[in-house]
This record gives sequence, structure tokens and C-alpha cells, in this order.
Amino acid sequence: MAKEKKVQQITDMDVDFAQWFTDVVVKAGLVDYSGIKGFYILRPYGYAIWENIQAVLDRMFKDLGHENVSMPVLIPESLLQKEKDHVEGFAPEVAWVTHGGSEELQERLCVRPTSETLFCDHWQHVVHSWRDLPMLYNQWCSVLRWEKTTRPFLRGREFLWQEGHTLHRTAEEAEAETQQMLNVYADFCENWLAMPVVKGRKTDKEKFAGAEATYTVECMMHDKKALQSGTSHYFGDGFARAFEITFTDKDNTLKYPHQTSWGLSTRTIGGLIMTHGDNNGLVLPPKIAPTQVIVIPIASHKPGVIEKAEEILAKLKAAGIRSKIDTGDQSPGWKFAEYEMKGIPLRIEIGPRDMENGQCMAVRRDNGEKIIVALDGLEESVAKLLDDVQNGLYEKALRNLNENTFPASTMEEAKDIIDTKGGFIKTMWCGDLDCELEMKEKVGVSSRCIPFNQEKLGDTCICCGKPADKMVVWGVAY
Amino acid sequence: MAKEKKVQQITDMDVDFAQWFTDVVVKAGLVDYSGIKGFYILRPYGYAIWENIQAVLDRMFKDLGHENVSMPVLIPESLLQKEKDHVEGFAPEVAWVTHGGSEELQERLCVRPTSETLFCDHWQHVVHSWRDLPMLYNQWCSVLRWEKTTRPFLRGREFLWQEGHTLHRTAEEAEAETQQMLNVYADFCENWLAMPVVKGRKTDKEKFAGAEATYTVECMMHDKKALQSGTSHYFGDGFARAFEITFTDKDNTLKYPHQTSWGLSTRTIGGLIMTHGDNNGLVLPPKIAPTQVIVIPIASHKPGVIEKAEEILAKLKAAGIRSKIDTGDQSPGWKFAEYEMKGIPLRIEIGPRDMENGQCMAVRRDNGEKIIVALDGLEESVAKLLDDVQNGLYEKALRNLNENTFPASTMEEAKDIIDTKGGFIKTMWCGDLDCELEMKEKVGVSSRCIPFNQEKLGDTCICCGKPADKMVVWGVAY
Repeated sequence: MAKEKKVQQITDMDVDFAQWFTDVVVKAGLVDYSGIKGFYILRPYGYAIWENIQAVLDRMFKDLGHENVSMPVLIPESLLQKEKDHVEGFAPEVAWVTHGGSEELQERLCVRPTSETLFCDHWQHVVHSWRDLPMLYNQWCSVLRWEKTTRPFLRGREFLWQEGHTLHRTAEEAEAETQQMLNVYADFCENWLAMPVVKGRKTDKEKFAGAEATYTVECMMHDKKALQSGTSHYFGDGFARAFEITFTDKDNTLKYPHQTSWGLSTRTIGGLIMTHGDNNGLVLPPKIAPTQVIVIPIASHKPGVIEKAEEILAKLKAAGIRSKIDTGDQSPGWKFAEYEMKGIPLRIEIGPRDMENGQCMAVRRDNGEKIIVALDGLEESVAKLLDDVQNGLYEKALRNLNENTFPASTMEEAKDIIDTKGGFIKTMWCGDLDCELEMKEKVGVSSRCIPFNQEKLGDTCICCGKPADKMVVWGVAY
Repeated sequence: MAKEKKVQQITDMDVDFAQWFTDVVVKAGLVDYSGIKGFYILRPYGYAIWENIQAVLDRMFKDLGHENVSMPVLIPESLLQKEKDHVEGFAPEVAWVTHGGSEELQERLCVRPTSETLFCDHWQHVVHSWRDLPMLYNQWCSVLRWEKTTRPFLRGREFLWQEGHTLHRTAEEAEAETQQMLNVYADFCENWLAMPVVKGRKTDKEKFAGAEATYTVECMMHDKKALQSGTSHYFGDGFARAFEITFTDKDNTLKYPHQTSWGLSTRTIGGLIMTHGDNNGLVLPPKIAPTQVIVIPIASHKPGVIEKAEEILAKLKAAGIRSKIDTGDQSPGWKFAEYEMKGIPLRIEIGPRDMENGQCMAVRRDNGEKIIVALDGLEESVAKLLDDVQNGLYEKALRNLNENTFPASTMEEAKDIIDTKGGFIKTMWCGDLDCELEMKEKVGVSSRCIPFNQEKLGDTCICCGKPADKMVVWGVAY
């Protein structure tokens, strides 16, 4: 019966992946839709995942010397316009505040789509000497981008993120920061979210508005599409010049500092869902799961069962394992389905027979494996099983990435791969925008990045046949 | 010389308290002004205080079963208008988004001034049965209120806060929640911020727009004015009726649930400054200070001094005391002034002579007291000194409150107190709005609250002379 209930609950992911995704975010209690298109309510369970992401990243940032700040939510139009490329990239998709109280404002204010201009304006006030550098700042906030098509987590008109902004004495220092923060994202995606990444540089077409270089970590979802999961930008001194930020260097001359920014958003929760989820719902990696273990008493009316289950819960909690118990009056089958939908990594079942044998049953969410675990030394066994789930999810996602990344040397070959199998395509590329646009038009893929791990697949561009020394990874992107 | 520098740096608090406040928030590095009136940048040191406030309160909320969520930053005009009193209170001071990208919106959206309407809209979707209750939610975010006069921390057009929103099966449960959260705020203000409070109920004139009852904790600042530091509202089922939120109760009938909300903002940082600060700058209570101890090597060119200072730092950190060191090339005098300005509760000086004697010098920020401390057992001594500073600040603030709260039985007496001494006035009040307005007009004070700790000062209203059974505390408020 529990089985039937589950089958009815969500769409089959291999039949309609987009609908499956929507079903999961709603049924797992992550999100509710608000009255405005593209604005979502993060419900407690969805927000708890974000809080865990915040806690881990915030610690990583601070360990590297970054400090949090809070910038205004509104940007004057004149400030947004100071850097030419930046305003061209963002102005078409911002929301404008035109009235405050009953008065019309003298200047329109946009709700921040990103905060480079605000940080620069502040730095212009407070940076004077090389002693003031580097400025290593981060901000946790929400930003608005007035997108046409919207989906929970993947593309919201409002989304939550962190935006790091740093200012440095030299170009080298700023470039090193850009790389360092990309590596933080890669580390976080792989070791916490269990999402293997392709690390690389964006083409000029795909880079951030106003940046000299954008670096990215790209992940492959279950449907073999790409999700850009974190980006790190090097700005050179372009913004500094536009905002007239100068400092007196050690040699007593006036110079422009060099700048970076880097961001990761609630999109990564979309990534978690689409990387690990299955037809029973969400599957969360233990290291980021709000609840790692759910304890479910079986035949809980029998004497001592609930007490034993509570005892197990207390033991796990004392060992620092995030655990909950469900002693409600629903059937075990209903509970199994419920916590599978919520993606809780490990279920512990305890009933009268288990108690007699001094054991309980552990069930892995990732592969359904059932393991008999002795109550003696339970904490160690559970910790080990959670590690196994974490590693199992990573290995599975890595296989998906490796088995669905294909080299191609002709447009026809590339088109055939996308049409029949899907996945990432790696090809040589001459560097011309025209060829990049033709790949989009004829094959239907965009360049995801020029990976740091280059392979020499050939000597010529897949598109124009001219000499090419760059390998690009292409894909259909969210 | 250090002394001279300090004197030049900030305005004397007893000459111009408002200017002193502005000087402190800027010189201590808490805030920078943005390009928009009433929007402030919280710099790392200012934001770090807020992060500590968040960490403590968040733990308190969660221990009481509350969960964090994230609501949209924008509210459709039609949603804001659903509860009559609420919209009347807030509509005049909101910022309106009228354009998204290049399009004019069909309906204006306001940037949230508070989120009751959003929570109600969500609950209308998800609350069906008594089993869904209570909903115990909280949100950390910024809100906008288009104020005319603005000041950092005290009155911003944007400010950071938390807003708790809860929904309950019965009126009794909701009322108990309202009281519970007021007590959390009182506990937090007194035991963490070292700010004694007057706890009580707001008069109808002063209550929150749309609330049945508003409760408050009021604090007295150094200049004897009042700062409302946290409020907790009971809504009855008014919003539930306006938003058509119903649930099936245990008896199988359809009912309206009962609601609360409660909030505390970055205003409390303004309160910290104005309660504890002095003419050398900020003074932070140790329990909330980002840095509790600053270690300063004296004659640091002498062999072993910096090493010993670092050793002290490591010892303090290992004991969980938030500590920093300054080994920079400025003079000790400059450093003393700098960390006094930043309000760091305890300074540890270590020089060659101290080393010989196996000791160091501790200097309390609150009263300037210098204490010789043996390096042996340093952590325990420092922890004890930090407790002393925390308690000393609370005792001093409590004296300020007690010594400047005066009973009055006639308007003339009240006016004379406000004109000559300032402070809080306690009087009997009949409950009529007219008398409350007359107190404002003739004495220049507003009702702060009807304290829970009532005293029978007489039988008649200070204003109209009619029978009165309520004691009110009045004051000049921020």
C-alpha cells in the first residue's frame, strides 16, 4: 500500500524530468509558490538545507580571512550605470523602485541583481592606502533578476545567495583569490554536496557582465544537462577605474586596485535534487542533510519499543548525528514513503524482534540496502553507513558524468550525440564567437567551460576547421 | 599623546549626544553611509555584532521549536491591503516596485515593511487540520520603511531584523507564545546585551498595526531617553479571517487559528552603543563582543615579547575566549585608543617587565581598572574579568534606569521632571486616548508601556483626574 501511494505521488523522472522536479520540491516540503511569478517561499525543510550550506561555506570563507558585511538592497540607477558592460548585462532584468511612501523618487532605484557597484561605491570611501588592502568581503542576501521563465531553485526572479567581493593591491593577488574561491566551490560541491564538477574558464560570450575572466564549476544532472553551480570572477581594475577607487602603494604612487567577486546560490539545492533524486523523491547527501537519520519504531504498541527507539535517538544525537524520531500514529509504510520523499539518508527501524536480538535495521536511502546493525556500537556503525551513503552518491554522480561525456570532432557527430544520448560534448574550438554561436544553433548546446584539465583531441575547430588549441565542454544548460 | 588623539576624535557625549553617537558608529567602523538616504552599509565590525546577536537568538528560537523560512522580498499591493488596520499602518511608508525589466507591472509590488501578509498567504495554502498547528516560523531578513528622518541603527529606511510568525489552534496558545517570546527578548537584552528592560503592554495608540495587543521591552539609554528594543504581538484571529485561513479542529469543525508575530532588529546595536558607550567610544558587553580580548605587546622590539604575546593569544583562544593580537607598528598609545574606540571589553598588555614577573596587565574597558594577572591560570582570570565587565555594565545600566525613573501625580510635576532631569515618568492613567495625547502635547512624552510590574501610585489619572487603575511608564523615545 505504501508502494502504491508513492507511485501516485510523483511523476516518473524518466518520463517527465521537469514535472518530476516540480513534484519533488513541493511534495518534499521544500518550497511553496508565492503570489508573484518567480518568487518562492522556502519552507522550513528547504531553508534548513540552505542553512547547512551557509554554515559550511561561511566557515570556509572565514577560515580564509573573509568577513561578512551587509550592503543596501537598493542601487541608484546612476550607480548601476557607472560600469558600461555591467549595466548592459543587468539593466534589462532588474526591478525598479520608483516611489517611496507617497512620493515619486527623483532617481529610480533598482533592487540589487548583484552588488559589485555597491561594494565599489563603499570602497571608494574607505580605501586609501595599501595598508587598507586586501578587502575580503562576503554578503549573504537575496537578489532579484526579472527572468521570463522561472522555476523553483533553478531560475527565480528572487533567489538567495552569497556574493563575495574582494579588492587587492595587485593583479596577481586578485587572480589568486579568483582561483582560490573557485577551488572552495569545487571542494564544497564534491565533498559536501557529492556533486562532481568540471572546473574551467568561461568563454567571453558566457562570462559575467563586466568581468575580465569568469571561472565556473559545472555539474551534470541526472538528465545529463549542465548546471552552473558556482562562479568566480576576475575584474582587473575595470570597476576601480569606473568608480575612481585608488590607493597609495608602498612606493608612494597612486594606483587602481584589482577586484574579484564570486557567488553560489540556492540553485545548488536544485542541483542536489537533480543529481541525487529518484522516483521515490529527494535523496540528500548525509553531510548536508538537515536530518541524517530517521528512527521509526515498528509495532510501537508493543511494550518497550518506543522507549528503545527513543534510546537509540538519544544515542545518535549524543554522537552528533542529526537524528529525528517519528512516533506518530501513521503506519510504518506511510512513514517509510514520507521520509524517502524527504531524502533522509538513513532510516533506522526498531521492533520487538530486533530488540530481542539486540539489533536494529538500517535502510540506506541511496540504494535501498538493508543492513542489520548491532545496538552495541550503533553510533560508529551509523556514522560509517552515513559515510558510505555520502561516498556512494558521489561515485554514482561521477559515473553519470564520466559515462555521458563524449568527444566529438564533427558537428554531425556532436548533433547525433545530443539527439540520441545527451550529455556533455568535448571538442576542440578555435576561440571564435561565430563558431560558438553555430554550435548553439546547429547542435543546440552552449559552451559550459574551457576545462582546466585540457585534452588534445585534435588540431582543428569542430566548427570552422581552422587551427584550434582549446578543448571546450559543451552541453544543454539549466 | 594618545589621550589628545582620543579627545579630538569624538564629540563629548554630554555636550551633543546625537553627534557623539554618529561619531562612534563611524569611528568604530560599524557603519558607512550609502548613496541613498537611510540606507547604511554594515561594515565587518558592525555586522559581526549582528552575527553574534543572530547566533544567540537563533539558538533560543530553535530550542523553543521554531524553524527558519524565507519569504519573498516583495508583496503585491492587493495582498498588503487584505487586513484593513495593517495596510493603514504600513502603506504610507513603503517603497513601490512598478517596473520589472523594461515592462511596467500590472500590479505594484511593495518591498516588505514586515511580512504578516506573506505568512498568512502561505498558511492559507498549507494549513488544513489541527495537526498542521502550531506553525512556529522565523525569518532573518531586511525590511524597508520609507522614514523621513533617518539615523544609523536607530531609524533606517532599510534595517535588518528577525520576524517570528506563529499560528496556533487556540487563543490561549497564541497568547502564551506572545508572552514567551517577549520573555526571550527580555532575557536576551538583560543577560546578553546587559540592557535592563521595562516589560509591559503597549497602549492601543502605540500598538502594532493590525494587532490586538503589543508587548514590549523598553530600555533607557545614557541620555535617559527610551529605546523600544523588541516587540511581541498577539493578533487574535483577525488576519486569519481576512486571509481565510481555516483548519479542521479535533471536534471536526472548521475554525480560524490565532496568530502572533515578534521582532528584534539592528536597532538593538544602537541600544548597545547608547547604553554602554562613553567618551572614548564604544563599550561592548563581553558576551556579545566580536572580540573579547585584545592582546597588545609593549616594547615589542625586545626579545621574546611578541612570542609571549602570541602565546597568551593562543592560550585565550584555546579557552574559547574570542581574542585578537595587534603586533602592528603603531605605538601602544595609538592602539589603546583604537581598541577603546571599538569597545573591546578587555585589553591585555604584555612587556619585558611583565614577562620577568610571570604576569601581564589587564585593563577593563568599562571602568579603566588595571589588574595585574598572573600568566599562570590566565584563562580563568580573564574569564572571570570578562564576567565582571558584563555584570558591571548591567549594574551600571540598571542604576541609570532606577535613578532616572520618577513617579509623578500632576502634569506640572511631570513636565518639571522632563525639563530639568529627563528620564522615565511613571503615573496613573485612566486609559483614555485623549489623556495620552495631552501627555504628549504638554509634557512631551509618549507612553512607553503599561508595565507588568504595576505599582499603585494613586487612584486618579494624572491628566483628567478621573479614576485610574493603570500605571504607565512615559518617556521621550527614539
